[in-house]
Amino acid sequence: MKTDIQIAQEAKILHIRDIAAKINLSEEDYDQYGRYKAKLNLDILKKNSHKKDGKLILVTAITPTPAGEGKSTVTVGLTQAMNKLGKKSIAALREPSLGPVFGMKGGATGGGHSQVIPMEDINLHFTGDLHAIGVAHNLISACIDNHIKHGNQLDIDVTKIAFKRVMDMNDRSLRNIVIGMGGIANGIPRENSFQITVASEIMAILCLSESIMDLKNRISEIVFGYDRAGKPLKVSDLKIEGAITALLKEAIKPNLVQTLENTPVIIHGGPFANIAHGCNSLLATKMALKLSDYAITEAGFAADLGAEKFLDIKCRKGGLNPNAVVIVATVKALKLHGGMNSKELKEENLEALTKGIENLDKHIENMKNFGLPVVVAINKFVTDSAAELDFIKTHCETLDVPVALCDVWADGGDGGIELAKLVIDEIENKENNFKYLYKVEDSIEEKIEKIVKDIYGGDGVIFTPNAKKMIKTLNEYGYDKLPICMSKTQKSISDNPKLMGRPSGFAVTINELRLSAGAGFIVAMAGSILDMPGLPKIPSAELIYIDEAGIISGLF
Amino acid sequence: MKTDIQIAQEAKILHIRDIAAKINLSEEDYDQYGRYKAKLNLDILKKNSHKKDGKLILVTAITPTPAGEGKSTVTVGLTQAMNKLGKKSIAALREPSLGPVFGMKGGATGGGHSQVIPMEDINLHFTGDLHAIGVAHNLISACIDNHIKHGNQLDIDVTKIAFKRVMDMNDRSLRNIVIGMGGIANGIPRENSFQITVASEIMAILCLSESIMDLKNRISEIVFGYDRAGKPLKVSDLKIEGAITALLKEAIKPNLVQTLENTPVIIHGGPFANIAHGCNSLLATKMALKLSDYAITEAGFAADLGAEKFLDIKCRKGGLNPNAVVIVATVKALKLHGGMNSKELKEENLEALTKGIENLDKHIENMKNFGLPVVVAINKFVTDSAAELDFIKTHCETLDVPVALCDVWADGGDGGIELAKLVIDEIENKENNFKYLYKVEDSIEEKIEKIVKDIYGGDGVIFTPNAKKMIKTLNEYGYDKLPICMSKTQKSISDNPKLMGRPSGFAVTINELRLSAGAGFIVAMAGSILDMPGLPKIPSAELIYIDEAGIISGLF
Repeated sequence: MKTDIQIAQEAKILHIRDIAAKINLSEEDYDQYGRYKAKLNLDILKKNSHKKDGKLILVTAITPTPAGEGKSTVTVGLTQAMNKLGKKSIAALREPSLGPVFGMKGGATGGGHSQVIPMEDINLHFTGDLHAIGVAHNLISACIDNHIKHGNQLDIDVTKIAFKRVMDMNDRSLRNIVIGMGGIANGIPRENSFQITVASEIMAILCLSESIMDLKNRISEIVFGYDRAGKPLKVSDLKIEGAITALLKEAIKPNLVQTLENTPVIIHGGPFANIAHGCNSLLATKMALKLSDYAITEAGFAADLGAEKFLDIKCRKGGLNPNAVVIVATVKALKLHGGMNSKELKEENLEALTKGIENLDKHIENMKNFGLPVVVAINKFVTDSAAELDFIKTHCETLDVPVALCDVWADGGDGGIELAKLVIDEIENKENNFKYLYKVEDSIEEKIEKIVKDIYGGDGVIFTPNAKKMIKTLNEYGYDKLPICMSKTQKSISDNPKLMGRPSGFAVTINELRLSAGAGFIVAMAGSILDMPGLPKIPSAELIYIDEAGIISGLF
Repeated sequence: MKTDIQIAQEAKILHIRDIAAKINLSEEDYDQYGRYKAKLNLDILKKNSHKKDGKLILVTAITPTPAGEGKSTVTVGLTQAMNKLGKKSIAALREPSLGPVFGMKGGATGGGHSQVIPMEDINLHFTGDLHAIGVAHNLISACIDNHIKHGNQLDIDVTKIAFKRVMDMNDRSLRNIVIGMGGIANGIPRENSFQITVASEIMAILCLSESIMDLKNRISEIVFGYDRAGKPLKVSDLKIEGAITALLKEAIKPNLVQTLENTPVIIHGGPFANIAHGCNSLLATKMALKLSDYAITEAGFAADLGAEKFLDIKCRKGGLNPNAVVIVATVKALKLHGGMNSKELKEENLEALTKGIENLDKHIENMKNFGLPVVVAINKFVTDSAAELDFIKTHCETLDVPVALCDVWADGGDGGIELAKLVIDEIENKENNFKYLYKVEDSIEEKIEKIVKDIYGGDGVIFTPNAKKMIKTLNEYGYDKLPICMSKTQKSISDNPKLMGRPSGFAVTINELRLSAGAGFIVAMAGSILDMPGLPKIPSAELIYIDEAGIISGLF
């Protein structure tokens, strides 16, 4: 069987100018980065402002399991299918992070015959956006410690600096460090920590900014810490928002690439899906809407995290009106949710499936509560039995939810035709009463309770004393009227990773709140979230090879 | 008076395809990075192998002082002048590092009317080479600590890991750190350190590699540390040379840009000029030679450091035959070397000049000892008096060294015509007996003594016990037949930064040797070298501004 990178390298790739021409862009609208990548100029939106936006489709999924769901693959397959049907469609996706590429998870460009190419370039450096974000972030960090060393005029409380350092690497040794050792010439010693770059607030900001000035204003508003009287300190106090924004002047431009079937894809931004909102940039989505009839996008993790944040944070900030939600499910993953042993997943097990499908049910309910048309996509595996597939189909039909078998991994766009037709049909014929889950004017506690009760199905919320103290601070300084970005395990709809399926009878404990004032949301932490992954004993890096001609193998 | 960035932004910039066309490159020979930058494909060298190489000119300088010499400005001015004279000339320069851009020194694209453009892009990220080098370096670091955490099969001695981490930032707080704290899940605690990215051995390797396979072999050979029996451990022991090389597959390609006068410039690589060899990449220089009649390049710091390493390391590795050396001097700097107070430099002072010119004399002698024709370029300042300029001219004429007044800062190429004519004349009419200073087969001690006595004019070398121990290890493991990369202060020809002019009666103390087995040289440390700069109280970052259209100001 061919590997993803083999399939990708054998594809007939078009020059990026041909892809740009397909969506009516002229040479002035973009900058080439090599032959197969381009950065799109921001004035494309202005130039096309008279045009009607296309329809917005969100691809989300059931709660992830080790069996995998294939959300990106379905997203790519769906846009390929739409184009096969003669519809103008653009997918808007997140950029991969180098950490997982060399660690365990691999890249993020889809799989099989539904991939975005050139996959090596996209997975390694791409157009340098993550590097720019990393440097921008670390310049703030360096200036904080430099300010302290040079007299600390702002009276920064060194025990309350919220802004860490970042690196685009899985490097657990940098999680807990002590910096500034070896005497005053080397700064003031303090505890510090590196996050992976995608966890940077700069990444979240870049993904929610609509212009260079918007970006600069958001950077100015970042609260990096507190002074010894407890007052929040902003990046504008360091007077470096101009330099930080200058570092991001290219990174803010969305990137154009193509699928294996030479249809346009915009890949831009990729914030963490727990301590941030987990969606590609607002500019990328807006450009996809402006330049196509069907813009297809995705959000990190399952619908309880990714979709909720997409709808309550990204759509709210950007005034987006989604038209439909696709929930990706697999037979294997649903059987795992039904309690089946992960080693026996290849065997038919209708009992486990019948039990596990409650996970899908809850996500369907949640999306319908947002007032949106829902379509279920069963991402097919060769081990799925006919009886299992039938069961899901019948189950969804009972719920009056359209459901399509989807084989985009093996068949590319052809494998997504049924899904594409259903999605188009829903958008054209179903009612859309999209509404946010909560009002930003609600209190912090009310907003979190709403998410926990209505989305997670929990009984209530427990705020630790630490969390209550932070809520008080946020209220005091007027940071309470922001949307909530929930940070919890992705492995369960609850805050307990062991509770599979559709958990009930639980309360969610919020032990910390973090302010992302630049991005414009409050992160509510349910449990401790690792924002710097580690490498496994045998990292994927050991499998990568390159020949004299520069051809790479072993990337996945 | 206009700032450098204003002059740069007002220039008429050509599309990079027009610059490429000037040196007979077709679209297959390069990849565009935006409109004004391109990466040159490595097979250009093979495709043009039948063509004769152009002449190679090195621009170096007297010992640097706070008054500045303007080596890059003269290099850019000289290539502009050559082109004005109808000669095909390409300059090959180093890439700027972001650290100094936001710290104090500023960018590295020349000045006034002798600059390389687009200066903002070149100074900020450029085509991402430094970022790629940083990630490649830090992946090795992460894999070292990961290996130790997962059982340390290689028996790595954690107290003898030579390979640090890097960041492209002036961040003194990262000079001395403790990593891996907080329990075994976060690795094994140990002391560690960040260098600025240009100090990475990967940078030195990239700049000495001639192909992707050469690059991979050199990466394999990096000695990152020692096992507990004292045996050197290589990156190939970690099995990640493929992944590291894959990360550098674009970074190894030289970058094409242009001067203010639309002449071609290749900018590629920029290793530290003390713990590394301080020259742009061999591939960039070879391409400049292949694609022009006069390739003009420079090397870091003064001739005792930059030129010596250029000739003994870079030219030796690459089989380059330089044709002439230009030594840049300024009246101000020579007066400083003559003991003048830095606040009075605007006043005429022939006495100080007469004393200080001995610094220039020593550098001229050194370059002549390499068997090379030498030309002196006096980089003119408005404060220079006619008598001072005359004195230098007469002095050089007495030494039978051609000398040209050079006003490329104010006049661009026109200000360098005299210099260009002299350089061409020397190359065509003077004998060239280029030879290396030492043989690599000499012992480590002999090689260092030769540099200290013949180049620095010192009486001898003192090796500390620590240095002697390392020499023994290098001999034992067969790492002694490598060229020497001297790491000493750039402020004096001696190892004492306070000794200006032409020091004598001193011995140089070598207190440490470092092995750069991948780059292929031994670093001899005379004094402690700071490989992670800090930010000043008011960093340049505070002066940078960007407007809605993305136009940057305040970069210099």
